[in-house]
Amino acid sequence: MNTLLDLIFSRHSIRDYTGEIIKNEDIELIVKAGMAAPSAVNVQPWAFIIINKKDKLINLSKLLPYAKMLEQSGAAIIVCGVPDKDMHFANKYWIQDCSAASENILLAAHSLGYGAVWTAVYPEEKRINDVRIECNIPNNIIPLNVIAIGVPKNKNMIPIDKYKIENIHWNTW
Amino acid sequence: MNTLLDLIFSRHSIRDYTGEIIKNEDIELIVKAGMAAPSAVNVQPWAFIIINKKDKLINLSKLLPYAKMLEQSGAAIIVCGVPDKDMHFANKYWIQDCSAASENILLAAHSLGYGAVWTAVYPEEKRINDVRIECNIPNNIIPLNVIAIGVPKNKNMIPIDKYKIENIHWNTW
Repeated sequence: MNTLLDLIFSRHSIRDYTGEIIKNEDIELIVKAGMAAPSAVNVQPWAFIIINKKDKLINLSKLLPYAKMLEQSGAAIIVCGVPDKDMHFANKYWIQDCSAASENILLAAHSLGYGAVWTAVYPEEKRINDVRIECNIPNNIIPLNVIAIGVPKNKNMIPIDKYKIENIHWNTW
Repeated sequence: MNTLLDLIFSRHSIRDYTGEIIKNEDIELIVKAGMAAPSAVNVQPWAFIIINKKDKLINLSKLLPYAKMLEQSGAAIIVCGVPDKDMHFANKYWIQDCSAASENILLAAHSLGYGAVWTAVYPEEKRINDVRIECNIPNNIIPLNVIAIGVPKNKNMIPIDKYKIENIHWNTW
């Protein structure tokens, strides 16, 4: 097995962090990995808000029902969709494109030794609105998720194996 | 830079293949990487159709307007959403979850030396219907995309750098 596959299979959601701050160059590299994702017709209908101020992390942890771990994370990345980036493709495909970028972010964080977890914002209207106000996000930009990233407290967690042969079909359903 | 980041940054869409068949164990490993993606509340609202019969690849290449490369690919994976997998989360998040799985598939293919490209099906109604009929997909299952995978004809293509500093905001928009 190669290293990338090892990392894909060993990545899992991590919600307990030491509280250590993440270096700016690491968080920028992680966002850069997000931007390397494919997008429909290469429109790149995305933007990224890096949160590394403690008060902002705490505010977001209070606003979002399943994001309490942000209190102890070293940073967070809000992956935002830009559906009006072009006339056709961005609006149809921004969720898919931003989700591919989010998966790159999770893998990049894991490869650098950090733990991360994707907490959903879109399509929950209240969460979208609360995050928009907290981070001054324009109305044409949609926060898809808030990804918490931190130094994991427990480095020995074993990911569950999610392989299910019944989810595979050959040539026809 | 670590190997995973190298692979994330060197991955790009590849549409020209030699026509060689992909080994079953490789394509299964690639699908397994897809299943290692995160999903909302770990519902795993997905299923995967592996296409490796030449006639099926050719039929799909004719049905889909931007998937002519399937004629020469060694295989394809149709990533399908299962929105009724549970009562709440699958329906809201299947597009995000299946897109994360699709990105894992693209990266896994790249790490094994194959080239791949994500061709969209959902939300185009005609494409969904055509793929559904060709592959006998039930009405409650939605084909999100068809990912073509093959041995690349040209191994020396350089990916474009998609990093844009203007897409990054710090702590607030």
